[in-house]
Amino acid sequence: MTVFEEVRALCASAKQAARSVANRTAEERHRILLDMAACLEAQSAEILSANREDLARASENGVPDVMLDRLRLDEGRIGGMASAMRELVSLPDPLAKSERTVRPNGLVITKKTVPFGVLAIIFEARPNVTADAAALAVKSGNATVLRGGKEAIRTNLAIVAALKKALSANGTDPSAISLVSNTTRESADALMQMRGLVDLLIPRGGKGLIRSCVDRAKVPVIETGAGNCHVYVDAAADLSMALKVTVNAKCQRPSVCNAAESLLCHRAVAKEFLPMLYSATRSQSLELRGCPDTLAILPDITPATEEDFYTEYNDYIMSVKLVDSVDEAIEHINRTGTMHSEAIITDDDAAADAFMQGVDAAAVYRNASTRFTDGGEFGLGAEIGISTQKMHARGPMGPEALTTVKYCIEGTGTVR
Amino acid sequence: MTVFEEVRALCASAKQAARSVANRTAEERHRILLDMAACLEAQSAEILSANREDLARASENGVPDVMLDRLRLDEGRIGGMASAMRELVSLPDPLAKSERTVRPNGLVITKKTVPFGVLAIIFEARPNVTADAAALAVKSGNATVLRGGKEAIRTNLAIVAALKKALSANGTDPSAISLVSNTTRESADALMQMRGLVDLLIPRGGKGLIRSCVDRAKVPVIETGAGNCHVYVDAAADLSMALKVTVNAKCQRPSVCNAAESLLCHRAVAKEFLPMLYSATRSQSLELRGCPDTLAILPDITPATEEDFYTEYNDYIMSVKLVDSVDEAIEHINRTGTMHSEAIITDDDAAADAFMQGVDAAAVYRNASTRFTDGGEFGLGAEIGISTQKMHARGPMGPEALTTVKYCIEGTGTVR
Repeated sequence: MTVFEEVRALCASAKQAARSVANRTAEERHRILLDMAACLEAQSAEILSANREDLARASENGVPDVMLDRLRLDEGRIGGMASAMRELVSLPDPLAKSERTVRPNGLVITKKTVPFGVLAIIFEARPNVTADAAALAVKSGNATVLRGGKEAIRTNLAIVAALKKALSANGTDPSAISLVSNTTRESADALMQMRGLVDLLIPRGGKGLIRSCVDRAKVPVIETGAGNCHVYVDAAADLSMALKVTVNAKCQRPSVCNAAESLLCHRAVAKEFLPMLYSATRSQSLELRGCPDTLAILPDITPATEEDFYTEYNDYIMSVKLVDSVDEAIEHINRTGTMHSEAIITDDDAAADAFMQGVDAAAVYRNASTRFTDGGEFGLGAEIGISTQKMHARGPMGPEALTTVKYCIEGTGTVR
Repeated sequence: MTVFEEVRALCASAKQAARSVANRTAEERHRILLDMAACLEAQSAEILSANREDLARASENGVPDVMLDRLRLDEGRIGGMASAMRELVSLPDPLAKSERTVRPNGLVITKKTVPFGVLAIIFEARPNVTADAAALAVKSGNATVLRGGKEAIRTNLAIVAALKKALSANGTDPSAISLVSNTTRESADALMQMRGLVDLLIPRGGKGLIRSCVDRAKVPVIETGAGNCHVYVDAAADLSMALKVTVNAKCQRPSVCNAAESLLCHRAVAKEFLPMLYSATRSQSLELRGCPDTLAILPDITPATEEDFYTEYNDYIMSVKLVDSVDEAIEHINRTGTMHSEAIITDDDAAADAFMQGVDAAAVYRNASTRFTDGGEFGLGAEIGISTQKMHARGPMGPEALTTVKYCIEGTGTVR
């Protein structure tokens, strides 16, 4: 069997199993989620042992420490995955919504919220995504086909084996949670081609993976997570607030997608603000890369290239550019940004309104850090990712984003 | 300038103009729509003269009569286009929706409904689509880039010239309604590549166009209109109702996407029902193409090939297949259908429930004709097309389908 055939067979089983999840009531889906949490904890010895093997192999292969840390599980992290599943139970049922209308000809039209069917998730070496994605799928009545990174394959197999036990115990086809065991690029490519079997593909990972899915997938895709986010310090900014927000947006957790990558500063306040930022962040070894006008104020920093303004560093680096107006800031953000999260610091309502309306992003902030773009912080509960596209879902995607609609129409032999 | 550069320049102007539409209040957008209707009527002589030239050229080139009929305009049809614009004014404003929440940390999060930005529509030689699509775009605060078929180019240029007058008269950038003057395949291909400039692409036309967009577009696409729709006559059907619905679904207007293409008949009623259908439709010269079991009952009809069961005829032809159960009907529809509109005729609630839940389509009917899948019939007012995908919009797409959301967040220097 080729990799393509293997992936197709897995997706076909998941498609078959999808009906057995979609048919469940909310109570039944919640029972499955609670059992999934219990099975994860009950199988923690097996999962941790698989994880130790993955870590040993990854370490031999020179995988960097930051990635090893994401890969590493312990009892606490497994407990965290189980708690997240239990918390999903308390969120509203995304399938409960339906709107009924009666037409003048007597047709009764009910617009129902229904699951997509089969969700495919392509992700990297973070085993918690395996558990989170499978749980969100069950919550929303979907089957999932998971394709994680090769570094985590043993861990993922052990996690999925535990979750399948919970499905079987509840009379649900265990193929409703499936893991692609082949972790080559070929298996990801195959998933992208599964028209009719994969109803929605969500890539979670670096820019390369996401671009590749968007460019090549024949199945519907939601783009997630690329975040070239900006903080714009306006002429009417409270500069001490601007400093606090900029430092938080950049430095509180630079590796995540809602961290800021670039500072735009109005020329009128640049001479005062940039030295404040420079002194405040030297101790955190933040590297600033400036446009020529910035260098005139901060001569010691690195010059920024054009490329810098398009770069998501995910690191202690920030590009800096002076602008003459809020309009120039908006234009720069719409040209170089990734439509994720953008902030303006200002006391001027007109500037704030122009920014909030003109910037074309999932989340636009006034006087707050970009770091809040997150399902938990927005009160949605769990999230499967942060959509940076406009179609279907935008911003943090909770269980509702994993549903679609179906019109069910009843007549009495009604014809047109 | 290459075709690609020409299309890019047009899309860039539309992107710029999009802000000038998005900024308008509902009242201002409605004023523009009323002026668009008035300008269409005022320019009807120019439009009809351009249309006569298109018709003459098309006729010389041997374009078939059914297409000439779609291309032909007269005062009545222009009046119809203007009325449709005026009716849009009375529909609810799709941009009015917003949800506000205050988080425990004081952040005020407002989830606003906003326009996409630039909609691109690729369509064939139906000039009414030019007017309808432009009007739906204005209603929902979007700019449009229209790329119609070559047969209608003079008519489309005249229509768009009239509509641009209405934009200018209202202080709105006329690039908000743009027509691609090049009608080669190259210009359609170029539109599909305009990442960052085209926010949503809606192809309206044949299967070939839609497949080509889905396979090759780098911009977000909504699939519309492919309709291999079925009527399933269950063992518990009222056969006279089944006959009435089948004939209506197939013959009332066979050229449209919600017309039925295939009949599935439960074996238990086939010997009674198929001869009823055969005699009732001979006078309408409906060609039936049957599976071997159907041929055993109706020996005079054409044998169906496997290909027939995947074919949208858009003509007086219907494939016929016997099934042993509602489950077999569901499986056949999910395998061969296009997820558009599917009907079951039955008095059995259990069979109806299984069908409504199991069939994976935008619209599923019990005891009614598939012909009702339409924005007007569903009470949505105008529609830009019928989505056969699950992502973003499913079924008839009204103005709401042309919007997305944006989170606007206000803090007081709030950090994480």
